[in-house]
Amino acid sequence: MKARVTIMLKDGVLDPQGEAIRHALAGLGHKGVSGVRQGKVIELDLTGADKAAAEAEVARMCEGLLANTVIEKYSVEIL
Amino acid sequence: MKARVTIMLKDGVLDPQGEAIRHALAGLGHKGVSGVRQGKVIELDLTGADKAAAEAEVARMCEGLLANTVIEKYSVEIL
Repeated sequence: MKARVTIMLKDGVLDPQGEAIRHALAGLGHKGVSGVRQGKVIELDLTGADKAAAEAEVARMCEGLLANTVIEKYSVEIL
Repeated sequence: MKARVTIMLKDGVLDPQGEAIRHALAGLGHKGVSGVRQGKVIELDLTGADKAAAEAEVARMCEGLLANTVIEKYSVEIL
């Protein structure tokens, strides 16, 4: 089973990396971009077969290691 | 309009960052993880209203700046 975790900075947390990308895109002539946020995506190969258990397990991984829940939000998709 | 770009290393390209995450998860007792790949996600706020044009524009951004297409693959979703 595969799981995909998407981790983004929470709304309101400054994202200088996203801002740098927006600036670079504008410099390359892509004028229609009003905002950019950058985050991480982590794809996990899981050995279990129980979808609900996998989702709970991946949420524990996010809380314990993958995301900094003070400033980041995460979402889990089981594929 | 919002677009989400997901950028992952191509299959076969070594991903030491993903491997480090896998190792750390195993150390924390998450034994059911057989592989990890890490990538980037970039969320763009676009000013245009034409979905097909936006998709083509974002693909040009990926080719020109966001992804290194030698070692990375990208996918574009218009939300």
